[in-house]
Amino acid sequence: MPSPTAGRILSIQSHVAFGYVGGKAAVFPLQCLGYDVDVVNTVNFSNHSGYGRFGGSRATAAELAKMFELMELNGLLLCERLLTGYVPGAEALAAVKDLAIRMKQKNPELIYLLDPVLGDSGKLYVSPECIPIYREALQYSTVITPNWFEVEVLTDTKITDPASLRKALRVLHETYHVPNVVISSIPLKVWLRAALPSSAQPPHTTNTDADFLACIASSTEGTPGSEGGTAPSAVHARCIPCLPGYFSGVGRGRCSRRRPGRHQTVTTTARLSAHFQHSNYQHLKASPPLTSTAKPLGTSSLPRSAQSHLVRVSLRTNPFVWRWISVRSSLK
Amino acid sequence: MPSPTAGRILSIQSHVAFGYVGGKAAVFPLQCLGYDVDVVNTVNFSNHSGYGRFGGSRATAAELAKMFELMELNGLLLCERLLTGYVPGAEALAAVKDLAIRMKQKNPELIYLLDPVLGDSGKLYVSPECIPIYREALQYSTVITPNWFEVEVLTDTKITDPASLRKALRVLHETYHVPNVVISSIPLKVWLRAALPSSAQPPHTTNTDADFLACIASSTEGTPGSEGGTAPSAVHARCIPCLPGYFSGVGRGRCSRRRPGRHQTVTTTARLSAHFQHSNYQHLKASPPLTSTAKPLGTSSLPRSAQSHLVRVSLRTNPFVWRWISVRSSLK
Repeated sequence: MPSPTAGRILSIQSHVAFGYVGGKAAVFPLQCLGYDVDVVNTVNFSNHSGYGRFGGSRATAAELAKMFELMELNGLLLCERLLTGYVPGAEALAAVKDLAIRMKQKNPELIYLLDPVLGDSGKLYVSPECIPIYREALQYSTVITPNWFEVEVLTDTKITDPASLRKALRVLHETYHVPNVVISSIPLKVWLRAALPSSAQPPHTTNTDADFLACIASSTEGTPGSEGGTAPSAVHARCIPCLPGYFSGVGRGRCSRRRPGRHQTVTTTARLSAHFQHSNYQHLKASPPLTSTAKPLGTSSLPRSAQSHLVRVSLRTNPFVWRWISVRSSLK
Repeated sequence: MPSPTAGRILSIQSHVAFGYVGGKAAVFPLQCLGYDVDVVNTVNFSNHSGYGRFGGSRATAAELAKMFELMELNGLLLCERLLTGYVPGAEALAAVKDLAIRMKQKNPELIYLLDPVLGDSGKLYVSPECIPIYREALQYSTVITPNWFEVEVLTDTKITDPASLRKALRVLHETYHVPNVVISSIPLKVWLRAALPSSAQPPHTTNTDADFLACIASSTEGTPGSEGGTAPSAVHARCIPCLPGYFSGVGRGRCSRRRPGRHQTVTTTARLSAHFQHSNYQHLKASPPLTSTAKPLGTSSLPRSAQSHLVRVSLRTNPFVWRWISVRSSLK
């Protein structure tokens, strides 16, 4: 019988009754991969705010702190992996950050995936007081998954060319000591396309920014000369075509302007296929971690009902990145 | 593409961060079966109350009513099936009951599984004011899943012999108009054992009450002469051996006295095996419903990680009964 801590994940994110975002998007796929997931809901909303109306309750800082304290007192903070997403307000966010610090101090091997939910497309959707709290939390993370706007906010750097992108990554790695950064989406502007190696570029038949998003991963782990050299990290990029599509569960109203559904659908699908791509592991000549409980699955080994459910569920960034960081960890 | 309402379930139950009870026990198996599950958390607790300490927040009646209203206004009350479990307090329970009434009036075909969570082993663990609210809700249910104590409370009938058991079932079917009753557990006392047909009896080598539990299902649907006759329902029974075991997620302290782990472990396992028993469907000479999204699965078709997860997860009553009522519906 596996130990109760093996691969156990504590997920602290939003919950919606209807739709698949936050914890509703992340937990089911992780459970399908064999992880035991402890789930703390930072909000309990009817649906994503992208619908015209939404409501429900937000956990207060005191409620979250009390819950973490009780889990600790009961000996139930058993997880080896921590995943945090949207937390409502600076005080509640500070309670989550304090937990992350305690857990990291207790177990320096903790894998902490921090999704610094601040905003998108040039607009904050949390209080500005959250920014310094996220900045303080960064040093405890193993991997972070900001979008391009969140990178700009965290690093105070406008990303307008390869130099500013490199600077932002360097700030995250060197000033904030984040070993792994995944920029979950960044529009493929002309300057970014030109900076990519030809093998990572999309076909030249498309010309507009809106046709592709890039996903950029940057890691200092296992990189020679990573301390202050000119090549501080290994950077991987992948372009994702934007196709028209419907992204279930995040609304059709205001949301479709702020977070275009067509982007997210395809991002999701691309990540899903990346996640299940067996060759992702084979070429590494290393077993993925947790083989006994979280085998990489060919989609054909999933029951058809679960497959269709997985495809319908938005995986957002988390499980893909989770696997990615797992693979990286196995190479150390 | 299946319609968004096909097989969609709205689950209104408790949530615990750690462990598998309430929604944490029911939702994952239902998702694995291909259902889209909308999830309203009636409480957000750190863990089951069986641990020495627990805490978190309870949804108020106003919060629940607002959430249901918003889902309705957004056109998101799409489910064809409703599943309700623990609701904290009479006012919040009334809000859930009101929703069930509205949904049933809007869609008379709604399948409503009502788990009337009142108490166990002779003790209430909710306010007595909940009792009349559950009694009022019963008429809207398709199937209810009380334990023996909850049957006693709802029907105001002490179950001490076959006559009182029959009377309690008759009250549920005839006074409260519940078409399907599953008594999820009842100790196999001498009188109950004697009342069972020999094919349903456990071996005679065991003598104590504590060795077996019975699960009793009683249905008026499709039963000739069900209106006021002497045989008001078709009754099925199954005995479940009690073996020592550990029931993960409901604590080790007070709980182990109030809700013996050894009972629940085996109940869970028995239900799990019943649930996945392909022959359950084959002998009916009818396809189970929702074949496109919720096929009955041989466990061998599940990935090993999901299998072990399913076994670790307590299914409690819900998915088994859910399938049971689905099978019954397909025979209508």
